[in-house]
Amino acid sequence: MTFRVQQGLLLAAATVALGAPARANDIARVIDEGMNRSQVMATAHELVDGIGARLTNSTGMRRAEKWAEHKMQSYGLSDVRREGFEFGRGWDLIDSEVRMVAPRPIKLTAIPVAWTPPTDGTLRAEVVMAPISERRHFAAYRGKLRGKIVLISLPGDGSEPTEPYFRRHDSAGLGKLDEYRQPEHSHDSLEERLKRNKYAADLDNFLASEGALAWARISYRDGKLVHGAGYSHHVGTTPKLPGIEIAAEDYRRLARFAKNGPAPVLEIRSDVRFLDQDSQAYNIIGEIPGSDPQAGYVMAGAHLDSWAAADGAVDNGAGSAVVLEAARILKTLGVRPKRTIRFALWGAEEQGLYGSLAYIERHIASRPVPSGTPAAQRVSYWREGWPIAKKAGYGQLKAYFNMDNGSGKLRGVYAEGNHGAVPLLKEWMSPFASMGATAVVAAPTGGTDHVYMQAVGVPGFQFVQDPLDYGSRLHHSSIDTFDHMKAADLRQASVVMAGMLLAAANSEKELPRPPLPTQPLPTDPFDYQFPKDE
Amino acid sequence: MTFRVQQGLLLAAATVALGAPARANDIARVIDEGMNRSQVMATAHELVDGIGARLTNSTGMRRAEKWAEHKMQSYGLSDVRREGFEFGRGWDLIDSEVRMVAPRPIKLTAIPVAWTPPTDGTLRAEVVMAPISERRHFAAYRGKLRGKIVLISLPGDGSEPTEPYFRRHDSAGLGKLDEYRQPEHSHDSLEERLKRNKYAADLDNFLASEGALAWARISYRDGKLVHGAGYSHHVGTTPKLPGIEIAAEDYRRLARFAKNGPAPVLEIRSDVRFLDQDSQAYNIIGEIPGSDPQAGYVMAGAHLDSWAAADGAVDNGAGSAVVLEAARILKTLGVRPKRTIRFALWGAEEQGLYGSLAYIERHIASRPVPSGTPAAQRVSYWREGWPIAKKAGYGQLKAYFNMDNGSGKLRGVYAEGNHGAVPLLKEWMSPFASMGATAVVAAPTGGTDHVYMQAVGVPGFQFVQDPLDYGSRLHHSSIDTFDHMKAADLRQASVVMAGMLLAAANSEKELPRPPLPTQPLPTDPFDYQFPKDE
Repeated sequence: MTFRVQQGLLLAAATVALGAPARANDIARVIDEGMNRSQVMATAHELVDGIGARLTNSTGMRRAEKWAEHKMQSYGLSDVRREGFEFGRGWDLIDSEVRMVAPRPIKLTAIPVAWTPPTDGTLRAEVVMAPISERRHFAAYRGKLRGKIVLISLPGDGSEPTEPYFRRHDSAGLGKLDEYRQPEHSHDSLEERLKRNKYAADLDNFLASEGALAWARISYRDGKLVHGAGYSHHVGTTPKLPGIEIAAEDYRRLARFAKNGPAPVLEIRSDVRFLDQDSQAYNIIGEIPGSDPQAGYVMAGAHLDSWAAADGAVDNGAGSAVVLEAARILKTLGVRPKRTIRFALWGAEEQGLYGSLAYIERHIASRPVPSGTPAAQRVSYWREGWPIAKKAGYGQLKAYFNMDNGSGKLRGVYAEGNHGAVPLLKEWMSPFASMGATAVVAAPTGGTDHVYMQAVGVPGFQFVQDPLDYGSRLHHSSIDTFDHMKAADLRQASVVMAGMLLAAANSEKELPRPPLPTQPLPTDPFDYQFPKDE
Repeated sequence: MTFRVQQGLLLAAATVALGAPARANDIARVIDEGMNRSQVMATAHELVDGIGARLTNSTGMRRAEKWAEHKMQSYGLSDVRREGFEFGRGWDLIDSEVRMVAPRPIKLTAIPVAWTPPTDGTLRAEVVMAPISERRHFAAYRGKLRGKIVLISLPGDGSEPTEPYFRRHDSAGLGKLDEYRQPEHSHDSLEERLKRNKYAADLDNFLASEGALAWARISYRDGKLVHGAGYSHHVGTTPKLPGIEIAAEDYRRLARFAKNGPAPVLEIRSDVRFLDQDSQAYNIIGEIPGSDPQAGYVMAGAHLDSWAAADGAVDNGAGSAVVLEAARILKTLGVRPKRTIRFALWGAEEQGLYGSLAYIERHIASRPVPSGTPAAQRVSYWREGWPIAKKAGYGQLKAYFNMDNGSGKLRGVYAEGNHGAVPLLKEWMSPFASMGATAVVAAPTGGTDHVYMQAVGVPGFQFVQDPLDYGSRLHHSSIDTFDHMKAADLRQASVVMAGMLLAAANSEKELPRPPLPTQPLPTDPFDYQFPKDE
C-alpha cells in the first residue's frame, strides 16, 4: 500500500517535471497487457473446450453466439449486437457408429457428413464399390446399387508424408511469399460452376433412384482423421440418403474386401438431428466508439463457426479468441481512438463466407443476383454480378483485419493486392518486428472472410501466420482441439491485432483503396479446350 | 506351342555346347520369381485384413497360427510344426466405448489396456487427475481416489512434428549407421530392473486399495492414435482394475476440465474377455531340407503376433509375409540347398521376445534362472544367468535373419557386433546392390527376435530397412493397417531375404561366430550416483 502511494507521487511529480502526460505509449501498453495479463487461452478454453464444435445453426453454435455476446458485453464493448442472415437448417451430430460386421467384426472410425439425414436406427447392408466423381460415371452403376451402401471414392494408397507436419516461416520463406505472381483467369463459366454446385444433389438423387441405402466416401487425410464437411444446409436441399465419411485406413480395408471378396457388410448408425426453429445465422458485433464520428471505422474479424468433427480450436477458435482478446486489451487500457474499432465474429464462414458477405450486403455494397436464384447458388452469382452498388456506409470502413489461419503467430500481413497500402501497413507493423511480425506481402489471398471485401473494393487484409500443423493435419479434422493451440503464439497475435487496430484507428493517413473489381479477361484468350462432358 | 518346342531344342543344344546345365543362376531366378510373380501382398492381405489383430494367445492369434501352418504346408515346406511355450492368458478385445458425459457429452477415442479386466457393463464416475509415475508418488494421493476414475499421466502439450513422418535412407545416412559407437554399460542392477517390472502391479494394488474404480493413461502419440500395450498376461498376475489408454487430444481435454472444473464425468465400457483354454503360445516352423545333413541349417524369422489396436500390418505382418514369401519363392524354384533352410514365425514377441527365446532354450542353449522365479521375471533373469549351457543343436544354426522393422525395403544387414562376419555378409548381399540393398553395418541392434541369439553367441542378424513412417506413427498404433504397407518394398525384401538365405545355405565358408557373451564391466567404474528412492 505504502509503495503504491509512493509510486503515485513519483508519477505525478514526473508528469509535472516533463510538462506532458507521463503515460506509457499505447503500443507498449498493449504489449504489456497482452503479454503479462493475457486472457486469450482462458477465453479459448471457454469456447473450444466448454462449447466445442460450432457448426452453423447447430446447438453448439447457438451457445457460442450467446457466449460471444456476453463476452463482448463483459469487456464493456458498445452496441453489442447480433446481425442475422438467411442460412438454412441447423444440424446436430448427436452420436454415430459404423462397424464392419463381416467378414470380421471391427469398429470403424467414421463421421456422418454434415446435413445428411440420420439413419433409421442401425442400417445394415452389404457395401458395393462404385467410384463416382462426375455425372458421366453414373451410367456404369445403373442397376447395381439396390439395397447397398455405396462406396463412392477411389481408395488410393497410404500417404507418405515426406514434409514435416509442423513448420514455422523463416526469413527466406517470408521473402518468397512476397514475389509477385501474375494472376491466372480461367475460362470457367458461371454456368459450369453452378452445375458443379449441383453435383452433390444429382449424386444423391441418382443413388436414391437406384435404391441405394446410404453412401460413404473416404477421408481426404489418412491417419484415422475424419472431417465430415457437407453443404446441403439450405432449406429444401436436404439429401435423401445418409452419407458418411470413413477414415482412410478403414475405407481402404473395405475396398480391398469388396475387390477380393467376401463382400463386406456394414452397420451404420447416424444419430443426427435437424433444427428448424430459426433458419438465420448470426454475426456477433461490438465496438469501441471513436472520438471522431466523421472518421469512419476500422474492424477486426474472425469466424466463430466450425465444422463438427472436433472442437473448432485452430479453425477458428484461435481467431475468435484473438479478436476478443484484442477487444479486451484495448478496452482494459481505456484507449479512445479517433476512429471506431469494430469487432466481428462471423457465422457460416465454413459453407461459403456467408456471414461476412451478409455484413457487406447490409453495410457496404452489393452485387446483383437475378431474382429467383436458388439460395445455394447466390454466392456463385454474387461474384459475377455487375455493377457494384455502394451503400451509404461504403466509405466508412477504412481497414479490415481478418484472422483465420490457425494458431501460429502473426509474421506479417497480406496487402491483398492493394499495392498502394504497403507503406502504411509496414509502418503500422513496425513496432512488432522483435516479435517476428515483419512481412507486408503484396499478394492477394483467398478462402476466408476478407474475400468479399476485396470483391467490392474495400481494404480487407489477412495476416501472414506461421503455418504450424494447421494445413497438414488440423484444418477441419477430428484433432482440431485446444491442445494444438499455441499459447505463446496467440498472446503475440492478440497484441499485434490490437496494435494494428489501434494504429489504423488513429492514423492520420487513410489506407488507399484497391481498384474496384471488374470482370477480368482470360489470361490466354487464344487457348483451346476439348469439349466438356455432357 | 511351336515356339516353346523350339526354345526347348535350343536350350538342349546350348547345354550340350557349353557342357554345363543352361539353367539361369539361382539369384536371378529368385529375383524373377519374387518380382514378376510375387504373392507377398496377397499373403499379407490374408493375414492382416483377413485375420487382423493377433495379440498373443487371443482368438486372432490362434487363427493366425493355424493359417501360418496351412500356408507353409501349401508351399510344400517340410516338417511344418508348432512349438509351444508357456506364456499365460489369452485376452480378446471385443468392443469398448469411452465417453465424457459431463460437462458436455463427447465420445472419446480410447482403447482398453491389454490384459486388464473388463468393466462390469458401463462404469460411470468422476475423473480425478493424479499424475503418478513412481511408487514415491502414491502417498500424495492417499484418501483422494475412492469411487473415481484415476488419470495417472501428465497431460503435456500437443506435439510439434518438425521432422517428416516418412523417410528413406540416403547413402549418407546408411554410411552414418556404420560409424562404430562404444557400448555403454550401466550400473542398473538386476534387483532394480525386477522392481521396475513390478511397478504396474504395485500401481494397480495401490489404486484398488484406495477404492479407485479404473485408471486411464494418455496415449504416447497424439493425432488420436492409441496403442493399448499391457503386460499382465502371466497366469495369476491379472490386475484388479480396468485400465484404458485415451487419445492425447481427449485426455488433455479431461485434464483441463479437471484442473479448472467442473470435474468431468466419464463412462467406460471395456468389453474384453480372458481366454484360459491354453496358456501356451506357439512358434510356427517349417523348412526346406538341405542336401547335406552334417551342414547344419540357416534360418529366417519374424514374429507373427501383434498388439490389439489395429491389424498388425507393418508390425509385423510385413516380416511374416516376407518370410513366407521367401519360403514360397525358394520352394517354387525347387532349390536344393546344401544346408537346411528353416522358416520361423514367432509368437509372443511383443511382450518380451518369448517365442524366439523359447526356441533358443529348446534347441540352442540356455542360461540359468533360479527355481521359483516368477514367470514375469524369467526374461530379466535370463539375460544375467551364467554360465551359458549349450545344447546339442548349438553348432547347427549357422545364420539367422530376422525381419521386424516395418515394410521398408531392405537396405542392408546389421552384422550385430559380429565384426568378423562383415566380409561374408557383404558378399551375400552384393547381387542386390541395384535394388538398394548395399549396407553391411557392424553395429548391434536390439528390440526383436535376434536378441537372445546374440545372448548365446549365435550369429543372428537384423536387416537395415528404410524407416518409412514405421517409428513415427505406425509402430503399435491404431493405424498399423495394410494400406501403410508398401508393395514394391515388400517384393524387394522377399527377394533379398530369399537370396540371403540361399547364399548362406550354400556358402562354402561358414559365418564366424560372435564372441560368447559374458558379464560386461561398467563403462565407468569410478562413477557416483545419488541414492535411489526407497
